[in-house]
Amino acid sequence: MSGMWGNNLKISIFGESHGNSIGITIDGLKPGIELDIEKISMEMKRRSPGRNDLSTSRKESDIPEIVSGYFNGKTTGTPLCAIIKNVDTRSKDYTKTKDLMRPSHADYTGYIKYLGFNDYRGGGHFSGRITAPLVFCGAICKQILEKRGIEIGCHIKKIKNIEDSSFDFTNVCKDMLIKLRNNELPVIDTQKEEDMRRVILESKQQGDSVGGVVECCVVGIDAGIGDPFFNSVESVISHLLFSVPAVKGVEFGLGFEMANMYGSQCNDEFYYDGDTVKTKTNNNGGILGGITSGMPIIFRTAIKPTASILKEQDTINISDKTNEIMKIEGRHDPCIVQRVIPVIEAVTAIGILDLLKEKEKWSI
Amino acid sequence: MSGMWGNNLKISIFGESHGNSIGITIDGLKPGIELDIEKISMEMKRRSPGRNDLSTSRKESDIPEIVSGYFNGKTTGTPLCAIIKNVDTRSKDYTKTKDLMRPSHADYTGYIKYLGFNDYRGGGHFSGRITAPLVFCGAICKQILEKRGIEIGCHIKKIKNIEDSSFDFTNVCKDMLIKLRNNELPVIDTQKEEDMRRVILESKQQGDSVGGVVECCVVGIDAGIGDPFFNSVESVISHLLFSVPAVKGVEFGLGFEMANMYGSQCNDEFYYDGDTVKTKTNNNGGILGGITSGMPIIFRTAIKPTASILKEQDTINISDKTNEIMKIEGRHDPCIVQRVIPVIEAVTAIGILDLLKEKEKWSI
Amino acid sequence: MSGMWGNNLKISIFGESHGNSIGITIDGLKPGIELDIEKISMEMKRRSPGRNDLSTSRKESDIPEIVSGYFNGKTTGTPLCAIIKNVDTRSKDYTKTKDLMRPSHADYTGYIKYLGFNDYRGGGHFSGRITAPLVFCGAICKQILEKRGIEIGCHIKKIKNIEDSSFDFTNVCKDMLIKLRNNELPVIDTQKEEDMRRVILESKQQGDSVGGVVECCVVGIDAGIGDPFFNSVESVISHLLFSVPAVKGVEFGLGFEMANMYGSQCNDEFYYDGDTVKTKTNNNGGILGGITSGMPIIFRTAIKPTASILKEQDTINISDKTNEIMKIEGRHDPCIVQRVIPVIEAVTAIGILDLLKEKEKWSI
Amino acid sequence: MSGMWGNNLKISIFGESHGNSIGITIDGLKPGIELDIEKISMEMKRRSPGRNDLSTSRKESDIPEIVSGYFNGKTTGTPLCAIIKNVDTRSKDYTKTKDLMRPSHADYTGYIKYLGFNDYRGGGHFSGRITAPLVFCGAICKQILEKRGIEIGCHIKKIKNIEDSSFDFTNVCKDMLIKLRNNELPVIDTQKEEDMRRVILESKQQGDSVGGVVECCVVGIDAGIGDPFFNSVESVISHLLFSVPAVKGVEFGLGFEMANMYGSQCNDEFYYDGDTVKTKTNNNGGILGGITSGMPIIFRTAIKPTASILKEQDTINISDKTNEIMKIEGRHDPCIVQRVIPVIEAVTAIGILDLLKEKEKWSI
Repeated sequence: MSGMWGNNLKISIFGESHGNSIGITIDGLKPGIELDIEKISMEMKRRSPGRNDLSTSRKESDIPEIVSGYFNGKTTGTPLCAIIKNVDTRSKDYTKTKDLMRPSHADYTGYIKYLGFNDYRGGGHFSGRITAPLVFCGAICKQILEKRGIEIGCHIKKIKNIEDSSFDFTNVCKDMLIKLRNNELPVIDTQKEEDMRRVILESKQQGDSVGGVVECCVVGIDAGIGDPFFNSVESVISHLLFSVPAVKGVEFGLGFEMANMYGSQCNDEFYYDGDTVKTKTNNNGGILGGITSGMPIIFRTAIKPTASILKEQDTINISDKTNEIMKIEGRHDPCIVQRVIPVIEAVTAIGILDLLKEKEKWSI
Repeated sequence: MSGMWGNNLKISIFGESHGNSIGITIDGLKPGIELDIEKISMEMKRRSPGRNDLSTSRKESDIPEIVSGYFNGKTTGTPLCAIIKNVDTRSKDYTKTKDLMRPSHADYTGYIKYLGFNDYRGGGHFSGRITAPLVFCGAICKQILEKRGIEIGCHIKKIKNIEDSSFDFTNVCKDMLIKLRNNELPVIDTQKEEDMRRVILESKQQGDSVGGVVECCVVGIDAGIGDPFFNSVESVISHLLFSVPAVKGVEFGLGFEMANMYGSQCNDEFYYDGDTVKTKTNNNGGILGGITSGMPIIFRTAIKPTASILKEQDTINISDKTNEIMKIEGRHDPCIVQRVIPVIEAVTAIGILDLLKEKEKWSI
Repeated sequence: MSGMWGNNLKISIFGESHGNSIGITIDGLKPGIELDIEKISMEMKRRSPGRNDLSTSRKESDIPEIVSGYFNGKTTGTPLCAIIKNVDTRSKDYTKTKDLMRPSHADYTGYIKYLGFNDYRGGGHFSGRITAPLVFCGAICKQILEKRGIEIGCHIKKIKNIEDSSFDFTNVCKDMLIKLRNNELPVIDTQKEEDMRRVILESKQQGDSVGGVVECCVVGIDAGIGDPFFNSVESVISHLLFSVPAVKGVEFGLGFEMANMYGSQCNDEFYYDGDTVKTKTNNNGGILGGITSGMPIIFRTAIKPTASILKEQDTINISDKTNEIMKIEGRHDPCIVQRVIPVIEAVTAIGILDLLKEKEKWSI
Repeated sequence: MSGMWGNNLKISIFGESHGNSIGITIDGLKPGIELDIEKISMEMKRRSPGRNDLSTSRKESDIPEIVSGYFNGKTTGTPLCAIIKNVDTRSKDYTKTKDLMRPSHADYTGYIKYLGFNDYRGGGHFSGRITAPLVFCGAICKQILEKRGIEIGCHIKKIKNIEDSSFDFTNVCKDMLIKLRNNELPVIDTQKEEDMRRVILESKQQGDSVGGVVECCVVGIDAGIGDPFFNSVESVISHLLFSVPAVKGVEFGLGFEMANMYGSQCNDEFYYDGDTVKTKTNNNGGILGGITSGMPIIFRTAIKPTASILKEQDTINISDKTNEIMKIEGRHDPCIVQRVIPVIEAVTAIGILDLLKEKEKWSI
């Protein structure tokens, strides 16, 4: 079951990169939500390729058509389905290389799982393009969360060896999170932007690719959301993040760095700031025992370098069962870190809304 | 819903540290599985405290009683429930400090979520003790996996600044994984064991604690297991890992290190080794597009230092709504990394078995 | 969550009667299934209206377009989404009566649940039209089941007071089930067909409607499918049947008639017919303890008379909060029993396939 | 997966009739609910056998011990597990007949499903005894519902040919529902009680058994609960009812009788009674389009005669693969209709609470 997720807000995605269309059905949105279509389009645009020299030149029509669950500009409460037609697909590009398993891609594992019946064109269902419906859904969730005072934002913590500063874990400003969304390469220390761009373009020139780390923050969330064990905030968010292609690591708060510290350095001491409970530090990233503490949720996601590179690589021909050398042609992103950001924000918004809804069950 | 998990092997856990008992119900085990009770006991013992000076001196009766789903030494196919009675609970230790929210613990977040009605004694349902039933379940799953030639094992990659070598990602020997289970502090480079012990005991003497990183490996698993998107192997395993108390980071393959590399360094090139498809490197940790490649699954888990330390800490009194200084008394682990290992192996075994069962659905 | 169902074959439906389109996403179909599109069309046609004077004259384009999960004439194993465009919608018919709650329809309960935001046109998401995607999905499931030797068929047991004979519970012939599908009003005792037609047309002339009872049979299914308690065959099938609009009763085997009998009359005695275990009678309808016995599964479904009648009825105006008299205009079915049959067969096929997949999990 | 159910209130049952213990884990109860233990005991007693000459003389300790999720007399919000020890098991009774498949029991289907590994003693996991934990859970849910003004009650509509009057579908009094619980054979027309008793005892004397029909009512529930399609109130309740052993039919409102009527007779006309929307009749049993209308929910459940009778019956010996004659010895209920009633009420309460919680998700 690759395509469905959710306990309280259920989503069902479908589609292949070069098929007829891709889309998503969202079940659980309450009736009467007015959707800000412009904001949704803006989020779609953040993910879409072809906007500049940092990403693939493939033009995608990322305009989702809402075909159900939406009436007179408002959600109806019944399943909302949105469909995005595939256009500008150059399927011929792929047929000639269909038996060559591209390294670091899902060609081989998909071939084995689907017994060779999967749509191989452009990565098929594995394509990063399938995250577009997630961004659509996330954009709706963000609108709902914003009304509750919850804001989600990201910056690029790192592109290869170029490292940005970190969020101030104890105090992240909403305006800053919103502002970051307008940047092509969102960073806190704006001097790093140029360095990052340079590293990406250099790798592009070499026919190579680079990855990076994204730091995400959720502010304005109440304490008491989430669960110990199987629905910990970390479990829910990491589950969704690791569904995003190219994600290979997730850490909350100081994460792996905590392994280097003493408990006395690591523990976040509580104090009353007026009536509000806060912690002096926020090394745990706003989550204790799987439950939000009211402090900002902070996590970092490792994105591997784009799998598609223009250099020659050794691989196998699955049909001939021979070893071969391949060179991937076509349009590719030298770096997808900046395009993954709206996807990270989207799945985070989806996860957080699901967790918030969980809590409402205790009204009875 | 904190206590239930699973798509194909469903588990339901219950219990509090100082309540009557803790336990687990497992639904989905096929009938006729002969359980090796001794092996189960051995796994329970690996997690249990009080075995040496590295862990708390609390003695726990970790002997689970199977009360259903088990007949004449074999599983029946109906829900198997196992119960562990709580003994040696010194509940009085906790009443006096019940209003003091221990830093880095779930006292505060639990208080907010459960509106003050949760059993605060010994961490209640948040206690690491609740992982004992998971180890029980994992021990059963391991037996099933072993019959399929799948072996799961861990070593301590790091305790504070003491770092072990890594698994050879492309070739991990099953015997080595099994052998590691017998070590109190399982490491590959045995010279590091003494250093780690020293670091732990030093922190104990200082009334402090340390954390670390565990590296886990699954060998013998077929290619083609897992799903793109919402049931990627990474999603399922990370979901379960982040349900384990103290886990703050998870990375697969080279994980965060991939962010520092070029695609050309990172990509795992395929080749035929006779009839078998392998990759020259295994930087992706045996998973591509969420699906196993047949190479060893490798991941690392960051464990934060034990939250309970004997040093004075600032905190709040939730009842008086005042800032206070507290000192945690009682029996505690200066380091829980070695005790978390069997839990990591257990939830991994549970997750892998669930994914393997998923695939069987395609028989029809 | 109205629109998603399934444990092992997951479906997600969407759409409103007069919206842009309706459809379904099916997750869990194995790769490589060749779909017999003609057979699917035939099933769609059985449900579609406008075929004769017994049903509404609304013409629906019931041709589903498969937009994902289907490649080169075969399933890929990834989510298969099919979309049906809405055409011939006369939405103006409904606006003038939107505040009048049609008796026995879901207008009022939908209004309350969805706070007035639901698409009221033609019943919106409550419309029987939303069963078309279910028939599409059922047609695929039937193809899979047929390859396993499982056949599903129905006859009309009753239209108002006209009663057909029953299946021979112990021995139902597959050919008969298949043959029944071709009949406009499928009955066993063909002399009843004319009577039923007459009753339907009489009620039509009077601006009234009639209901009936459908008897369904599943033959060729192995013993040992299903579960005690929460996934009993009866639980799964009744859950799906009661999702179909107009269904108000479900009974298995002799059902309510068993309440009139002694145990000694009711019990189905076992015997060996060669190597095969059979029961002399099959009053339990092929299910014991929630699990198939290998005998034909037999159940009956009560369908209420079409809610839309042309007679004047008392009702409320929800906007004015007044009592009013209304007369429903437009195209309606005087009887939907015959059109519900392919839907009953479809959801049965979906349920049975889900249960069969469940069993496969025990391969490991 | 036989033992888990629920979307918003999740339950997990376990146990066999003659095993160590049976029980249930309930996940999703909000913290701070004070449990009326006496009321729970009373419900347990209603189901328990050995109270009079109408039921088996087996004495069961039906006292559940709550081992988790309950602290200082209140729910904690974490999983609540209750365990009932099995006592007075006469397991020897069963070993000699273990290969004889009792007609109308689950011996044969269970043998096939569980490959002969299931605990055959006393029906094992199929035993009606496993409904005791459901009654425990239902008793808690009832307490929660009562605080919302929702009351659930049943009467025996029929024992064999003795038929009670029906509820007034449009107006059922809560006090009456509560009063019915105290009757050994709860009927509306009290003159029928003696007749029913006589029929039961006569069948007992003949070594035979009888079944019946139970009519259940839920009053005080708001309009707008439930869902079209897969979570219709009928779907949820029937799913749970058909999980109860011996249930073979379920109908809502007039159910199968609607098939005999014209739409004009059947449709429930709406009217304003002051500000309240009501229907003049309630033939739909309080549910339209799967959603509550605010009118009483009414449904009837068909219970087959107890499978265990003392008369000789033909059956098979599954080990010898021969046809045999068997005579079931031991303690049995000549009629279980009256004992099923608290189970019907319990699962109804569980289903209704789950549906009510579903609606709360729309708070955000």
